[in-house]
Amino acid sequence: MITQTECLVLDAADTLADRRSRFDLPPDTIYLDGNSLGAMPANVPGRIKQTLEQEWARGLIRSWNDANWYPAPQRTGNKIATLTGAEQGEIIVADSTSVNLFKVLVAAKRMRAGRRVILAEKTNFPTNVYIATSVAQLTNSELRCVDPDEVLATIDENTAVVSLTHVNYRTGKRYDMEAITRRAHEVGALIVWDLCHSVGAMPIHLNRSQVDFAVGCGYKYLNGGPGAPSFVFVARRHLDSVQQPLTGWHGHARPFDFTHEYVPHSGIERMLTGTAPQIGILTLEAALEVFDGIDLDVLRDKSVSLGNLFIELVDQELEGLGFSVISPRDAQERGSQVSLLHEQAHAITQALISRNVINGFRAPDVLRFGLAPLYVRHIDVWNTITALREITETRAWDSDAFKIRKAVS
Amino acid sequence: MITQTECLVLDAADTLADRRSRFDLPPDTIYLDGNSLGAMPANVPGRIKQTLEQEWARGLIRSWNDANWYPAPQRTGNKIATLTGAEQGEIIVADSTSVNLFKVLVAAKRMRAGRRVILAEKTNFPTNVYIATSVAQLTNSELRCVDPDEVLATIDENTAVVSLTHVNYRTGKRYDMEAITRRAHEVGALIVWDLCHSVGAMPIHLNRSQVDFAVGCGYKYLNGGPGAPSFVFVARRHLDSVQQPLTGWHGHARPFDFTHEYVPHSGIERMLTGTAPQIGILTLEAALEVFDGIDLDVLRDKSVSLGNLFIELVDQELEGLGFSVISPRDAQERGSQVSLLHEQAHAITQALISRNVINGFRAPDVLRFGLAPLYVRHIDVWNTITALREITETRAWDSDAFKIRKAVS
Repeated sequence: MITQTECLVLDAADTLADRRSRFDLPPDTIYLDGNSLGAMPANVPGRIKQTLEQEWARGLIRSWNDANWYPAPQRTGNKIATLTGAEQGEIIVADSTSVNLFKVLVAAKRMRAGRRVILAEKTNFPTNVYIATSVAQLTNSELRCVDPDEVLATIDENTAVVSLTHVNYRTGKRYDMEAITRRAHEVGALIVWDLCHSVGAMPIHLNRSQVDFAVGCGYKYLNGGPGAPSFVFVARRHLDSVQQPLTGWHGHARPFDFTHEYVPHSGIERMLTGTAPQIGILTLEAALEVFDGIDLDVLRDKSVSLGNLFIELVDQELEGLGFSVISPRDAQERGSQVSLLHEQAHAITQALISRNVINGFRAPDVLRFGLAPLYVRHIDVWNTITALREITETRAWDSDAFKIRKAVS
Repeated sequence: MITQTECLVLDAADTLADRRSRFDLPPDTIYLDGNSLGAMPANVPGRIKQTLEQEWARGLIRSWNDANWYPAPQRTGNKIATLTGAEQGEIIVADSTSVNLFKVLVAAKRMRAGRRVILAEKTNFPTNVYIATSVAQLTNSELRCVDPDEVLATIDENTAVVSLTHVNYRTGKRYDMEAITRRAHEVGALIVWDLCHSVGAMPIHLNRSQVDFAVGCGYKYLNGGPGAPSFVFVARRHLDSVQQPLTGWHGHARPFDFTHEYVPHSGIERMLTGTAPQIGILTLEAALEVFDGIDLDVLRDKSVSLGNLFIELVDQELEGLGFSVISPRDAQERGSQVSLLHEQAHAITQALISRNVINGFRAPDVLRFGLAPLYVRHIDVWNTITALREITETRAWDSDAFKIRKAVS
């Protein structure tokens, strides 16, 4: 039997515990939706106040140079490179994940023009499938979507590019990045990894795994704020040949020559399109300081510890209450979230919110619990499980109080 | 002879004069680069402090609903609709101008699949030509770039779409939107107008002119901050048929159903792609409040008054000093900037900056003076001309002090 005291002991031994104080978290709230929108690092408002009141209001146009706005996409990309096993100059921050995915899928397809298939999988986040569908239409390709466990066997000599998400948004299931990338390369295909649900929660080894392209999200475990800009990775070996289709002026070799012939920049800058969303990038850059000095293996250990605890407590405390764990029980195959099925999932999410426990709901019946290891504690897991037991034992969704709350919400 | 006193009298009679106090402008600085980066409206820092410290930090994921983040792209688009002669629900804020241009050019080409030509012009801003080149490549079209005064005569039955910028970034020359749109429609072509250098400085009549598509910039005369998100207009008659290629989940009819078939939203929302860059959009939304209650014809009158004064003072004060006016002298053909040619343009820009006059330089020899009518005064024009005379009469660029400043800058 795991006890509340044991959870407190785990937190007392947590070498990352002090990182929680770098976030501005609401008191008395347990926040388990950092896989959807990360909490706010406390240094952000000061940085943005400076950006607005000094750099913009006082420096005006001069700040593109004087406040180093121009190199912010590269600078912030380099910080993300240290979290993903990339080299400096292989990652840049720009646009949204959907837009960056479009860029790299078209670019990859152009590099394998003789092959017809873009391979994806059926449980992927919808935007990845929508974008791949559009790319297939524009590049006269075929999008093939298979079951997740068929991916490895389906990659073949017709495959131009494999497009997968490292950690599944719904179940938290994690792919073996290295093995699948190796298989793609064995048959001459390229690979694109979407890191939205892994970056900032675990070590990622883009170059050790020989990954070709990757994209990822700034607003989940990277805590870059609502709608934070995305990032894009291109392996150095492809940088001088990759041709992405969103050829805006900031991707040009010499944007301020204002010539009409598009000459792509020789570096990762060629993945840029329009003017950088500066306030969003500077928010993300400031937010990334919470990772300074972090050992990503330690971060992953804590994430695994939280996830294992969560699943063990579901087994111990919630038996017979209608829950089932749909995340992998083997931590090796899991990201940094635990997802449960329950036929009252929506009502339970509402009841959790009324108890100041915030998680994510995915229709029709999935409860997601994001375990952002920089600020989630073991005692938070204990208290969440306790709340789940109370809610389901008392069938909170049958109570008048709950119905009234739901009616007015 | 125009005198300094006359400039002060014009300012005293300016019914928009009080709007200047709504901006946080550096003291003792004349800012004539608002056509590149608009000045900061003073209400922005308070709004963004609220967004960060309350909505993000306290509300967390709940703020997408509770703080009305979700409808911010529509809400802000509707504010821009009132500045551009569009209806509510015809404009939405998203992505960068380059990205939005890509969306509408592909969409327009798909609506005229049987026609081969995308027509643009040679003096357009480079990103417009780069994006059109990429769209032509992806859609098996031909990009034809002609001289500006050949556009009208070149539009013919082979033209799928005409892509033009309303006001030229370099010269400030303004196209007759209504006449060119009419000509395009006479031969069955569609039109895309880029409003980057006109929106927020003059009335625009998108629907009266029967425009099909438009894009525009949030960070110039709209004062939305560095890299502010862009906007995109689709005429209501096209909304239910337009198919844009960046099919991200936020353009879906029901994004939170998480289905894998892309069904575009029935409204302007189908022009969305990824998650909205919320901090950037809320900055722009707050900034747009400086336009509340503005009569755009009065705004235009002031802009014309500033431009006419500038040109008259060039003639009166700068004769024989090597300047020539490359902007149209007829205000009907001009946007809200005056551009001068001078062989020492770069040195003059540097010398102006040292006198706290900030304008724009475009290589090799163009000085741009943006006349943002919400905060630029007639006396600013007088003082700028005076500075130009001093700098050129004394050949400031030959002085040791200037050379030293240049060496260390």
